[in-house]
Amino acid sequence: MKICRYNEGRIGLVEGDIVHDVTSVAGQLPALRWPVEPGDQFIEHLEALKPAILAAKAGSATARLADVTLLSPVATPAKIIAAPLNYHAHVDESLVDAQIHNNVHVAHYEGFASPVAKFGVFLKSAQSLVGAGEGVRIAFPGRRNDHEVELAVVIGKRGKDIAAADAFSYVAGYSIGLDMTVRGTEDRSYRKSADTYSVLGPYLVTADEIADPGALAFSIHVNDEPRQNANTRDLITGIAELIEIASRVYTLYPGDILMTGTPEGVNTVQPGDIMHARIEGIGEMRVAVRG
Amino acid sequence: MKICRYNEGRIGLVEGDIVHDVTSVAGQLPALRWPVEPGDQFIEHLEALKPAILAAKAGSATARLADVTLLSPVATPAKIIAAPLNYHAHVDESLVDAQIHNNVHVAHYEGFASPVAKFGVFLKSAQSLVGAGEGVRIAFPGRRNDHEVELAVVIGKRGKDIAAADAFSYVAGYSIGLDMTVRGTEDRSYRKSADTYSVLGPYLVTADEIADPGALAFSIHVNDEPRQNANTRDLITGIAELIEIASRVYTLYPGDILMTGTPEGVNTVQPGDIMHARIEGIGEMRVAVRG
Repeated sequence: MKICRYNEGRIGLVEGDIVHDVTSVAGQLPALRWPVEPGDQFIEHLEALKPAILAAKAGSATARLADVTLLSPVATPAKIIAAPLNYHAHVDESLVDAQIHNNVHVAHYEGFASPVAKFGVFLKSAQSLVGAGEGVRIAFPGRRNDHEVELAVVIGKRGKDIAAADAFSYVAGYSIGLDMTVRGTEDRSYRKSADTYSVLGPYLVTADEIADPGALAFSIHVNDEPRQNANTRDLITGIAELIEIASRVYTLYPGDILMTGTPEGVNTVQPGDIMHARIEGIGEMRVAVRG
Repeated sequence: MKICRYNEGRIGLVEGDIVHDVTSVAGQLPALRWPVEPGDQFIEHLEALKPAILAAKAGSATARLADVTLLSPVATPAKIIAAPLNYHAHVDESLVDAQIHNNVHVAHYEGFASPVAKFGVFLKSAQSLVGAGEGVRIAFPGRRNDHEVELAVVIGKRGKDIAAADAFSYVAGYSIGLDMTVRGTEDRSYRKSADTYSVLGPYLVTADEIADPGALAFSIHVNDEPRQNANTRDLITGIAELIEIASRVYTLYPGDILMTGTPEGVNTVQPGDIMHARIEGIGEMRVAVRG
């Protein structure tokens, strides 16, 4: 099942290039009172809502996917976790490009099993999140602002100390993630967390539709110029292990987003650019950059 | 006004060493529906709730502050922002202590106006937050887990691109913050974000009660041994400027917590230790460390 959010906050069931308006299912979510539990209530109840979503499709209004304004398929994540330096060729480019390391961000990891073993994972502001149709607004004009395309994993249920062997039972689904980044000396959680610097889309593909998330080709073009082109089989630390590592530190909540890391080819974008990202088995999204 | 949360989630008005149970005021907060706006609804409405809080005090049940289990005075922050290296003597200890820098975390900032100008601010997981009565659970046994006591600022209303001159109009109040930290090679947002690694308490002191947050003596003792002892007048980047810098990148929401940075004297804690933190004009809190 492919679920999107669009326009002023409608919920869509995506089939091919058609969006079925199934917004009415949100009425089944119970009202909340302060203090609200962390996490996204829709993602928490997604499995239970599936029959209602299919029922709501009958007689629903429809629109063409290309004609709607796509919002983030997760509305209210409690947090966004991301993996640094998780493809070898990106480690290599980070070691040699002074605009990336800035003599601050160490990338070598001799003596450690992996970059993630040395550097851990990091956080992006949950409020930096937008959908493909909202676009990215450059927050640091005059500096190098880069695209980083990655496979994004959406957590479906609360968990702590999740073993890698159980990790996929905690996954609600997958989307394309853009981990937008300004290069500089600041911490990752600053450089990657400006408003609009996390893009999720075009929609959520539920986990049952992705046979092997560890073998997906993906790419990003900017203005039709190829920039990054890789496959998740080359992840240094795989999805299940990332979930194990993250959940050893943070309790995970429904709707938490795990950005799994970007491959080589990171490069700058400017206002007016159009980013076009694709992941095999998920789909593609067009994201405008503005000033 | 001093507001606490305690026991199973009750709301307290603190006067001296007495807590008045004013939980009933939460009934005035409107019910919420998914997708819930970021931020803490109680903090958002705190100014409007003040008359109801005072009214609820009459005839309220009371308890001694020392007898209740204190929770975080902010229940559901959207994010926790923190300043690195914001006291000169802590910069100095970070430069010379290999257990702090680990040959990864650069602390020198030649050519920059301040450490924050070079390194920015960083994020801690909003779900790492606990109150004084909940205590800290060591998430990285066998490693060096440190206390970092700091003045915590609670944001009262949504804002973006806030000028330093307007910054204090966005402040709801102040608390003591503990930015618990494991030393190592990982990013700050990993090392400082394990569950229970952010402590806020003992209660929120509304901004009107703190004449000058930039001149508060504060300290932490561990098992009665003095560890950190400083004054917010020695902040390198002051509160108003931190709000300006943070809000240039992140939209701030009611309940966002800004930890302003820790002074020299950071050091390890072990399960069984008791941390005792004090800030002039706010109060003091006792926080147990467990394994």
